[in-house]
Amino acid sequence: MPRILRINTRTKEFKFEELGDYAGLGGRALTSRVVNTEVPGDCHPLSAENKLVWAAGILAGSGAANSGRLSCGAKSPLTGGIKESNSGGQFAQVLPRLDIQAIIFEDKPEMDAPFSIVEIYADRVEFKDATPIVGKDNYPAHEELKKIYGDKAVTALAGPAGEQCLAASTIQFSDPHLNPARSAGRGGMGAVMGSKKVKAVVLDPEAKGRIKPVNEEAFKVARKRWLEILMGHPVTSEGLPAFGTAILVNIINEAGALPTKNFRYGRFDDVADISGEKIAEVIESRGGKTKEGCHTGCVIQCSQRYNDKDGNYLTSGFEYETVWGFGANCLINDIDDIATMDRICDEKGIDTIEMGCTMAVAMDGGVLEWGDSKAGIELLQKIGSSDAMGRIIGNGADFAGQAFGVDRIPTVKGQGLPAYDPRSVKGVGVTYATTPMGGDHTAGYAVATNILKVGGDVDPLSKEGQIELSKNLQIATATIDGLGLCLFVAFAVLDTEDAVQCMCDLVAATHGIEFTADDFIALGVNTLKDELEFNRKAGFTKSDDQLPRFFSEEKLEPHDTVWEYTVEELQAAKV
Amino acid sequence: MPRILRINTRTKEFKFEELGDYAGLGGRALTSRVVNTEVPGDCHPLSAENKLVWAAGILAGSGAANSGRLSCGAKSPLTGGIKESNSGGQFAQVLPRLDIQAIIFEDKPEMDAPFSIVEIYADRVEFKDATPIVGKDNYPAHEELKKIYGDKAVTALAGPAGEQCLAASTIQFSDPHLNPARSAGRGGMGAVMGSKKVKAVVLDPEAKGRIKPVNEEAFKVARKRWLEILMGHPVTSEGLPAFGTAILVNIINEAGALPTKNFRYGRFDDVADISGEKIAEVIESRGGKTKEGCHTGCVIQCSQRYNDKDGNYLTSGFEYETVWGFGANCLINDIDDIATMDRICDEKGIDTIEMGCTMAVAMDGGVLEWGDSKAGIELLQKIGSSDAMGRIIGNGADFAGQAFGVDRIPTVKGQGLPAYDPRSVKGVGVTYATTPMGGDHTAGYAVATNILKVGGDVDPLSKEGQIELSKNLQIATATIDGLGLCLFVAFAVLDTEDAVQCMCDLVAATHGIEFTADDFIALGVNTLKDELEFNRKAGFTKSDDQLPRFFSEEKLEPHDTVWEYTVEELQAAKV
Repeated sequence: MPRILRINTRTKEFKFEELGDYAGLGGRALTSRVVNTEVPGDCHPLSAENKLVWAAGILAGSGAANSGRLSCGAKSPLTGGIKESNSGGQFAQVLPRLDIQAIIFEDKPEMDAPFSIVEIYADRVEFKDATPIVGKDNYPAHEELKKIYGDKAVTALAGPAGEQCLAASTIQFSDPHLNPARSAGRGGMGAVMGSKKVKAVVLDPEAKGRIKPVNEEAFKVARKRWLEILMGHPVTSEGLPAFGTAILVNIINEAGALPTKNFRYGRFDDVADISGEKIAEVIESRGGKTKEGCHTGCVIQCSQRYNDKDGNYLTSGFEYETVWGFGANCLINDIDDIATMDRICDEKGIDTIEMGCTMAVAMDGGVLEWGDSKAGIELLQKIGSSDAMGRIIGNGADFAGQAFGVDRIPTVKGQGLPAYDPRSVKGVGVTYATTPMGGDHTAGYAVATNILKVGGDVDPLSKEGQIELSKNLQIATATIDGLGLCLFVAFAVLDTEDAVQCMCDLVAATHGIEFTADDFIALGVNTLKDELEFNRKAGFTKSDDQLPRFFSEEKLEPHDTVWEYTVEELQAAKV
Repeated sequence: MPRILRINTRTKEFKFEELGDYAGLGGRALTSRVVNTEVPGDCHPLSAENKLVWAAGILAGSGAANSGRLSCGAKSPLTGGIKESNSGGQFAQVLPRLDIQAIIFEDKPEMDAPFSIVEIYADRVEFKDATPIVGKDNYPAHEELKKIYGDKAVTALAGPAGEQCLAASTIQFSDPHLNPARSAGRGGMGAVMGSKKVKAVVLDPEAKGRIKPVNEEAFKVARKRWLEILMGHPVTSEGLPAFGTAILVNIINEAGALPTKNFRYGRFDDVADISGEKIAEVIESRGGKTKEGCHTGCVIQCSQRYNDKDGNYLTSGFEYETVWGFGANCLINDIDDIATMDRICDEKGIDTIEMGCTMAVAMDGGVLEWGDSKAGIELLQKIGSSDAMGRIIGNGADFAGQAFGVDRIPTVKGQGLPAYDPRSVKGVGVTYATTPMGGDHTAGYAVATNILKVGGDVDPLSKEGQIELSKNLQIATATIDGLGLCLFVAFAVLDTEDAVQCMCDLVAATHGIEFTADDFIALGVNTLKDELEFNRKAGFTKSDDQLPRFFSEEKLEPHDTVWEYTVEELQAAKV
């Protein structure tokens, strides 16, 4: 039976517990339930009362395709609300081998206490001195860990940004290619880890267990159908593998929704220099790889290996949103410099989306020139250093706006908006405004139906149908995050009639329980209810469910659209 | 008839208007009504939609003792709510000579537009190039203005902090002693001024007009009685003139309510080194002055001239809260260094209370050592410079807490708490929690009745009677601020039976209207209603009416008190 591992980071005590009241939950469903149940809504996110919860999904370790995502939950230092930050990497694939569903980091040591490496075994937890890796960037720190724990060590790292408790800091998880390149990116989970003085977590390198489905035959059938579903859809079988998520650069630009120069325009003149097609060409010419999975068991393979001009590894997990954030949003057209920025963010442990927004705000504030990629690289390198500028940048767009006196800041609930202008992809705008996560596209990716015409066709420029679309996607997403599935399965799921039933069959067969389509919906709805309840306790009201005023006041070229929803209208998108 | 002067800072147009709907209002009553009526609650405080309103009081220019205070209002960059920041200086004494009740600065130029000096005459406004004083500290900038406009020029300045739109920046007004030493200190009014690219405002040096009371005889009688009341109370006639507000250092320490080491203890071991008595001794030994008024017509004379070791002027308006903030709260016991910090704050244009809180937070964050006054001076000198650390410090305690990863931050609604620990002066704690201003003692100074036994005797350590006390004081204070009277008149007013009637007589005689005790109360109540309504529109809810959790969790020595009010209980303190 999978267990919960509670670790007190102050006393260094630990306890393996049965799931108890949390039975049947996993992934985001579990992290959000724990945070809502155990963390006071009005506590400070960096206080001893906050908890950092890492949970493998309900299907984790089952061997179902793309079931290896990890949920990281806490009260967010960035938004002040609840956060589930979802990451790839090997961590959630190995947890089940240790019979662990979730780890809960509790309490905190004094601010000047030393950092620890926390080793997790099936029967114990050990705290080791982290001094040799403190202050180190994530790649070199991970190299050190490999020296100690072996090449295939599965690790989680708080980078220099997390050590400083910066509100945009990530937790970096190691990937199948032995790099710390997968991020729990959004909402400052690295700061919560840093506040608890945990520099790294390493899973027992000898972990050997395997999940055996309770109903093996039924599982085999469902698993095969699941693979067919994923391999039968053009987005998951062709588009994403060929170009990664950056395939969207041209598509969203064409749609007039690629936020350019800090959300001033919907198209970028130099789009050809940063497109997915261009990136694939560069990768291939330098002996990189266009297809890689972020965890074993991934069949979509949207990641890549991007090499520098000399053919040496530079970065991976080089996402559309990163290319947009440092590219169009900052008027930068040098794809190598953008890839370098992606790498620096992984090194420092800082969210690329938040940094894309923050850098544009800094450009508005006159800190650096529009399009100056070299100055942008210098700025990012200050994060986690002794330079106070690094603390400003690393705390995100709202913070930098206040530091630099800028009044035009694209955030919702304190979190920087991603790569889709809500005026011209209204469905995702509804998600930005209403998800408990703050400005977040993954929480209800209406871009699928608005632009890609997956799961139907809802006009991106019209108000009609967006509220319902976003609400339904938010529910389905919460369920998928609870199962531990990669969100990208949704493309295939939305267009395949028996897909929900197939996922239900996977759950039922794995755990030997009944799991119907109603249960599927209820899992997502209940997760969102947990999250909304926590946010109410944290002081959020419906007036927080709105985009910044400039989206309503400034028309976006080329469609001359504005954001037109009232707060009252938007409430209908919440469960 | 007094007029409103509207100045568009973008187009440089201006308009003199009748008061119209604002007739009968002045001071805080006027600024809060204008902000609530004309500024969108959800606008960004640094945006073109915010307005900066400066209003002389209802009794301004009448010649009544202590009627020369100025109200500065806007949506606050520090709290995100409404703000009335109250200042001494000559400004509100001169405005009536130009027949101006209030100036409203509207709109804003582009961020990279040049700063202006705005000259105000009875019939026109002129914008002059501010380049020669941009980037200059306030004292040298004021010297430059004196060269242009003459020695007695009455000025308002945004310092280097205001130019950078830092959220704790002040507006510095010139005093009768020709120094820019009087601050609209709290809530970042300097940032709003800076965002509108106004570096300085100068009132016509030739302004000659005089207010003539409508009913001269009645006014003479009331004015005489008013003077008797102020001169008849020991606090206003003896305590404050002899030692300034720093007389409180020993009193509040004795009461066990002097917040020490970032609100960890209620008494400071080195209190004798920073007491009002000690300061008076230092002042006298160096040829300074212990009694000075902040504006002509002041009979209380709580200000002073503090000279350095060489007998040269160092600072004035050296308040108890400043001595506490850089002293006990930071474990600093060098009174000359504290006076130097006060001067630096006036030079940069930054709030001393917010800086006292911020410096202690920085000490908690390991940025400098506890008690290290030289490092504290260096830190303050970075404000307004190109050093990013200055931007962190200058944005206040909450901001610095986030920058440095500190979770124990003494703020309410984003504003740093002043020099009275709310656990052991519970009445002022109720004010901190419930005033629309954020953490502010002046909004309902229950210290008077809790500790000084003025206006009754309510036990500071007990919950009993505090809610009603704070509420009544908040109302009376709002009225006093509307009349343009110095808050310190309240000590005499609370203990003198006919004082309210006397103030009513002053208003009635000055304007030739009826003005009863009911009108007196209504003025305060309506002002608070405006402010609370604005804050609701800005997104505040009752959950914002509470102190940080650590006040409820950590006992304060020597009385071992904690903060025990629920949010529900506290609502009764609001009108």
